[in-house]
Amino acid sequence: MSVAAMIGGGVIGGGWTARFLLNGWDVRVFDPDPEAERKIGEVLDNARRSMPGLSDAALPPEGVLSFHASMIEAVQGADWIQESVPERLEIKHKVFAELQAACAPDAVIGSSTSGFKPSELQDGAARPGQIVVAHPFNPVYLLPLIELVPTAANSTEFLDRAKAILTGLGLYPLHVRKEIDAHIADRFLEAVWREALWLVKDGIATTEEIDNAIRYGFGIRWAQMGLFETYRVAGGEAGMKHFMAQFGPCLQWPWTKLMDVPEFTDELVDLIADQSDVQSGAYSIRELERIRDNNLVSMMRALKAQDYGAGALLNAHDALLLQHGPVPATLAQVTDYSAPLVTLAQAVPLDWLDYNGHMNEARYLEAFSRATDHFMKLIGCDAAYIASGGSFFTAETHIRHLDEAPPGAPIQVTTRVIEGAGKKMHLWHEMMHEGSLLATGEQMLLHVSLDTRRPAPMPDDMQEILARFVAGHDGLPSPDGIGRAIGAPR
Amino acid sequence: MSVAAMIGGGVIGGGWTARFLLNGWDVRVFDPDPEAERKIGEVLDNARRSMPGLSDAALPPEGVLSFHASMIEAVQGADWIQESVPERLEIKHKVFAELQAACAPDAVIGSSTSGFKPSELQDGAARPGQIVVAHPFNPVYLLPLIELVPTAANSTEFLDRAKAILTGLGLYPLHVRKEIDAHIADRFLEAVWREALWLVKDGIATTEEIDNAIRYGFGIRWAQMGLFETYRVAGGEAGMKHFMAQFGPCLQWPWTKLMDVPEFTDELVDLIADQSDVQSGAYSIRELERIRDNNLVSMMRALKAQDYGAGALLNAHDALLLQHGPVPATLAQVTDYSAPLVTLAQAVPLDWLDYNGHMNEARYLEAFSRATDHFMKLIGCDAAYIASGGSFFTAETHIRHLDEAPPGAPIQVTTRVIEGAGKKMHLWHEMMHEGSLLATGEQMLLHVSLDTRRPAPMPDDMQEILARFVAGHDGLPSPDGIGRAIGAPR
Repeated sequence: MSVAAMIGGGVIGGGWTARFLLNGWDVRVFDPDPEAERKIGEVLDNARRSMPGLSDAALPPEGVLSFHASMIEAVQGADWIQESVPERLEIKHKVFAELQAACAPDAVIGSSTSGFKPSELQDGAARPGQIVVAHPFNPVYLLPLIELVPTAANSTEFLDRAKAILTGLGLYPLHVRKEIDAHIADRFLEAVWREALWLVKDGIATTEEIDNAIRYGFGIRWAQMGLFETYRVAGGEAGMKHFMAQFGPCLQWPWTKLMDVPEFTDELVDLIADQSDVQSGAYSIRELERIRDNNLVSMMRALKAQDYGAGALLNAHDALLLQHGPVPATLAQVTDYSAPLVTLAQAVPLDWLDYNGHMNEARYLEAFSRATDHFMKLIGCDAAYIASGGSFFTAETHIRHLDEAPPGAPIQVTTRVIEGAGKKMHLWHEMMHEGSLLATGEQMLLHVSLDTRRPAPMPDDMQEILARFVAGHDGLPSPDGIGRAIGAPR
Repeated sequence: MSVAAMIGGGVIGGGWTARFLLNGWDVRVFDPDPEAERKIGEVLDNARRSMPGLSDAALPPEGVLSFHASMIEAVQGADWIQESVPERLEIKHKVFAELQAACAPDAVIGSSTSGFKPSELQDGAARPGQIVVAHPFNPVYLLPLIELVPTAANSTEFLDRAKAILTGLGLYPLHVRKEIDAHIADRFLEAVWREALWLVKDGIATTEEIDNAIRYGFGIRWAQMGLFETYRVAGGEAGMKHFMAQFGPCLQWPWTKLMDVPEFTDELVDLIADQSDVQSGAYSIRELERIRDNNLVSMMRALKAQDYGAGALLNAHDALLLQHGPVPATLAQVTDYSAPLVTLAQAVPLDWLDYNGHMNEARYLEAFSRATDHFMKLIGCDAAYIASGGSFFTAETHIRHLDEAPPGAPIQVTTRVIEGAGKKMHLWHEMMHEGSLLATGEQMLLHVSLDTRRPAPMPDDMQEILARFVAGHDGLPSPDGIGRAIGAPR
């Protein structure tokens, strides 16, 4: 079991805690704030409802969370120590001095700082090479970006280890190769913040109008491609050079006018706070957090289906998770052909809920469909096979909805092969949540040629594999509800 | 029929053309470029595959597209004239002079300019009050934001009419109340562009690293909430003032260092173009456009399901579209109880496709489920009824997949009521695409109390409405495939 120590709770420390804990790490927290346990608990509530459902694979069992009255006690046995204390250099230096006197010399000490360069943090430390900037983005339990900023004092081995740990948590370590004020992302945030302050101060736009200018336009573009790839597309066939030749000088025009700094007065603060109340005051912060998390999970899962941007990261992480979960990743891992096969294990994602407050009926079929997809992979109908022109089309499906499951709940689908020969594959899926049967899904699939889009016999080796499952599952009692027609008596 | 004239094709003029055309307007194009028809055709190809599926309602029939050799001919009878010519003021002035000599005096002349203020455009015009900045964002057929920037010369009546037209196209007119260089959104884009140029020039980050810093972090946040609402959440219960007190001064630190302008040299252009090739060169621009559109449609539809941000705009637009489509919006619009009821009419969205290149099986159920939802609304089980504690849960569904439909294809679901009394509602859905039966969906639903989550009888008025449909549909021939069990002979 790996162990992480959190120095400082709050929104950021709590987010890190959730990342580690829900990925199976034990987490030891030190925070002198008497409210720390409550605050981290609230972040964990949000994380438990949103984060497991980002994955289409099962997360490992949660680690153990503990709170410690001393920093020295908290860092005992820790492989990763994350510092998220207030942004004052003298406090951080004091924390590092205490830490390094007690922690393992090969533990990673990551700092959540957005304001300090790693050389400033390492200055005067007992072992500077153990300290690195690992700057996360709120909510840490959902957003994958970590700016990992080292100095020459950090060894390659140390950085590789830090990156491997972060990647294992589903995070994306962006190695910032030269340290710089505000790292990378915050420089953009600050540039935009400065412009936004001007626009509000000068009465050009309200906070709500600015948010709309972002989220109805370039914000949606940036969420998937970022800045340069977006402009590359805008440049058309002529490419990036053409784009810059056309728009570069044009973009330069108002530069000289945009570079004053508005004074950060009480009046400006009040103006923004008041406009923000008008814009978002109908929701409490807790409600806004949940709205945000619902939106982020929904969009990130949408990008998963496209295998792009943050969605591609999530898919890569799922492939890792699959190695350790209850679903066999390959046919070689199937040891018992006589038991129903576990073909899906994941949590109910937030975007699967509907107005009835439960998993929408179509998402039951999405889960069964993914179970079928995974079973197809096991028997040889994988991406390469499909690219070569063979696949399965579903001809018929019968679903019985028997019980409900809340968001974040772990679900499993087991699959029995009723028939599998020639062109036909007849599957029986059962969806379970903690020992209760949520639904059954009976499916008849036809093996097809993707050239003709018509049924065609399976290759012999695929039929042979299916025959093994049919023979094994044939010994099981007939499933309750098989062959059922709608409205037939139970 | 409303008529729009496009002065200037290209990516932006072509995007405007698609917006108008696919919303049922006739579009008359003037562009001296001999390649204009081909270029607009390519934008239209992209728009036709992506834009109809943004809506969960049917778009009106496409208008008529025509190309004209003279500007004077193109603007005949136009209600909206959109100028998207190169960003040179003398060209724009010349265009406006020619236009205004020929067009209707009450037509809206919108300019796509990002570089000029409306007062500059109106300067010297015959009717300045007819000209307004209407600045779109690429791809215009998907992104809803339009910066509508008037001057005092534009009347309120004129602006209201312009806003109504834009809203009718599914666009969001952001009324910029004071004209300013670069309007609003581009000021942010320029601020970020400037920072990005520095980072690349100084070797801090490559174009790909910068894109990743954006799209794995704040880009996803901004896509749904923008800047201020995101910070409001980050500030926690203490609110926006607290956020600014905590982070305002901190954000100010590096300001003074971030405000130089990098020189736009050939070396910098080459550096960026080369890095962009490494990052995205594996895809052609056409492929990148389709990837972008797939991503945007998927994320915007994800936000629709959450009814937030751009998704809330789309839902509001769907409600308008529903008024004019084949689906009755209310029970009062149902005139014939003896025919199957049209309960869904929309296009196959891009995010409904799977690895087989067709609509995924779960999306068939999503469509049937939405058809059921709409039928529930018609019989009185609407949002208010559900909030009062009654609803329907699906107990059983049987789907037969009979044919395929490509992305963007119009589909319709018709619904027959087989049984509807007490607690039970038995529905029969058929999904059609251009006269061909794609699938059938048979569903048994139970009316429930949302307090007990158990079946409960429908109220009398709901049973009475259902009885009308049952009696009407009873005269139709029994549907082919009803009561079918999986694997039964055809």
